[in-house]
Amino acid sequence: MENFQYYSPTWFEFGRGTEAKTGELVKKFGGHKVLIHYGGGSIKRNGLYDRVVKSLDDAGIEHVELGGVKSNPLSDLVYEGIDLVKKEGVDFILAVGGGSSIDSGKGIALGAVYDGDCWDFYDGTNPVVTEALPVGVVLTNAASGSEASTDSVVTNKDTNLKRCAAGDALRPVFAVMNPEVTFTLPPYQTYSGIIDMFSHCMERYFTPTKEVELTDRMLEALMIVILRESKRIKADPNNYEARANIMWAGTQAQSNITGLGRAQDWGTHHMENQLSTFYKCSHGAGLGILHPSWMRYCYQKDILRFAQFATRIFGCQMNFENPEETALEGIDCFENWIKFMDMPTTISEIGGKEEDIPAMVADMFNGAPDHGAFLKLTPDDVTAIYKMAL
Amino acid sequence: MENFQYYSPTWFEFGRGTEAKTGELVKKFGGHKVLIHYGGGSIKRNGLYDRVVKSLDDAGIEHVELGGVKSNPLSDLVYEGIDLVKKEGVDFILAVGGGSSIDSGKGIALGAVYDGDCWDFYDGTNPVVTEALPVGVVLTNAASGSEASTDSVVTNKDTNLKRCAAGDALRPVFAVMNPEVTFTLPPYQTYSGIIDMFSHCMERYFTPTKEVELTDRMLEALMIVILRESKRIKADPNNYEARANIMWAGTQAQSNITGLGRAQDWGTHHMENQLSTFYKCSHGAGLGILHPSWMRYCYQKDILRFAQFATRIFGCQMNFENPEETALEGIDCFENWIKFMDMPTTISEIGGKEEDIPAMVADMFNGAPDHGAFLKLTPDDVTAIYKMAL
Repeated sequence: MENFQYYSPTWFEFGRGTEAKTGELVKKFGGHKVLIHYGGGSIKRNGLYDRVVKSLDDAGIEHVELGGVKSNPLSDLVYEGIDLVKKEGVDFILAVGGGSSIDSGKGIALGAVYDGDCWDFYDGTNPVVTEALPVGVVLTNAASGSEASTDSVVTNKDTNLKRCAAGDALRPVFAVMNPEVTFTLPPYQTYSGIIDMFSHCMERYFTPTKEVELTDRMLEALMIVILRESKRIKADPNNYEARANIMWAGTQAQSNITGLGRAQDWGTHHMENQLSTFYKCSHGAGLGILHPSWMRYCYQKDILRFAQFATRIFGCQMNFENPEETALEGIDCFENWIKFMDMPTTISEIGGKEEDIPAMVADMFNGAPDHGAFLKLTPDDVTAIYKMAL
Repeated sequence: MENFQYYSPTWFEFGRGTEAKTGELVKKFGGHKVLIHYGGGSIKRNGLYDRVVKSLDDAGIEHVELGGVKSNPLSDLVYEGIDLVKKEGVDFILAVGGGSSIDSGKGIALGAVYDGDCWDFYDGTNPVVTEALPVGVVLTNAASGSEASTDSVVTNKDTNLKRCAAGDALRPVFAVMNPEVTFTLPPYQTYSGIIDMFSHCMERYFTPTKEVELTDRMLEALMIVILRESKRIKADPNNYEARANIMWAGTQAQSNITGLGRAQDWGTHHMENQLSTFYKCSHGAGLGILHPSWMRYCYQKDILRFAQFATRIFGCQMNFENPEETALEGIDCFENWIKFMDMPTTISEIGGKEEDIPAMVADMFNGAPDHGAFLKLTPDDVTAIYKMAL
């Protein structure tokens, strides 16, 4: 186990009806005037917007709003938000939505207190965010774990590069999490979120660090439960218990409590950024497409770790005479699970073409010499993996 | 899953050599003048005390000290600490030790800012601690999880009652955790700590709440790893990786991340308080004695939960024709594990006598009508369990 630091001061308010506490929480964490930041109209149609606004009004919190966040949020709305926040004297960002609204809100929060161009934190000019307006979250999708993470992923409108800013200052001060608000999500969004959180576990699980049994077991706990609940949600999207376990698993998968003291990979996430940018698929859909190919490309680096993945998470029987067979069986199980959720498993299914691969590889390696830790990926490796996934 | 709130803002600095960061962390969290609070002379003999003081001096932090904390800390030293802190203008408590030093330090921290008698928070006159001086920890034993918990357990010198004060204000602001400092602990202290953290998992695991698969799996992850590492530590007390997993497991077992949204039991902990008060055994030793009897007394309330405990944690084969057999096998496995660590499994072994039972039961029910949640324990139940454990 490597040395680590960990600090996760988000206040969680979890369960039915918790959105009624939003105003009180904004006040508790020092907000006076809030920017309500959200996506499309779903929160207005299902009544969540009204309940949140009522809670703010009841607590005497002023508010302005900025909607229109899209999946894979764009920098132009972040800049618009920064201008609005400065003009209106907003001192607190309230993201009501899933990962896209939260990440966009975090971009506004860091840009509002920074003299330069906020993109400096995404392109690495400034590597760590140390200051930002406080961000609160009312979560509407279980996916990115951004409600408790240090990260904000935004796509630059001009260059089409999807990049991540990070720092403890971006951990939300509170997250209101009512699983009921996820009942009405379309299946594509639900399963995109589920694949994303499972992928957050895998990016940590496939590590070159030895002696990580405790975090291994915690990751396995999350993955086993995510698998189980994905099936119960498919059978009944209104199963509160399944939705609750999935929502909390999504937070745990990315709060980094399971990633401490071990090298993490993130190669597949970085490859995915191009799929969702080029073809407008969801982040989770892109991850479901790429993970099987990434696994088949690099499992030979540590066959027993992949056999552990197969046996402990998917319940495969270990083939002690031929562990490679077990390792490959686990990858098949993962891919079959993606298909079970009616999600794509090839780049072709989302309209991708082989001729785009060089441009995707170029974007991915713009500013980074390599990617991944379990296996360090070069441009040739990534080209091969994209081709395998076609 | 029940609704829950969760807030765990402790800063963790984990790994080799991290005690050198103590001074910098005190400064980060606003301390100017520190009370160094500790137990016996071991931290002076092994050099930890000197390294911590050097770190404080390097950071320009003033300090006074109060040693002498005993296992099962007493209220008189807490009162002495409160007087000292007020007299010296101390604004930060630094506990260097295990659960006893931390809990005693928390008592000083809450008493220093309270006008009345600090015992009010232990006897329930004031049920929640909302204000306290900041507490930092340099951990020397993996056991109580007090380095990240809301609790302080202290025994009243006059009445001999062992009681718990709690509140978010008692969560330490930082915890410095270097597993190397646990290499030289005597086996009795090591295994007392290991039983304590395993017990913290069991008090949550045996719950009447249904649909708690995620926290179940996380608890199982911890218990599996605690079992494994106890064996590796017995084979080699200087195994850094085993000590590291045990130290971090102890924190997770009591930070309550695994107890959210479920009723928790704590009956065995409350029964144990009398054993350690009457017979001066360690808290962990008392828990190891009582848990098997508690389990045998109440497993019939939910045989399948005990079968789950047996199969998932101890790897027992499920007897589908007779689940009760599997449930009982798991209890035997637990008890055999206590014996494997050379820890006591009967009250007699620590000098206990049947004639003390009425007095212990009276103390336990002094101020509480019942105990436990998996099975609500009456005085008759507790009498029966104490007798089974004789």
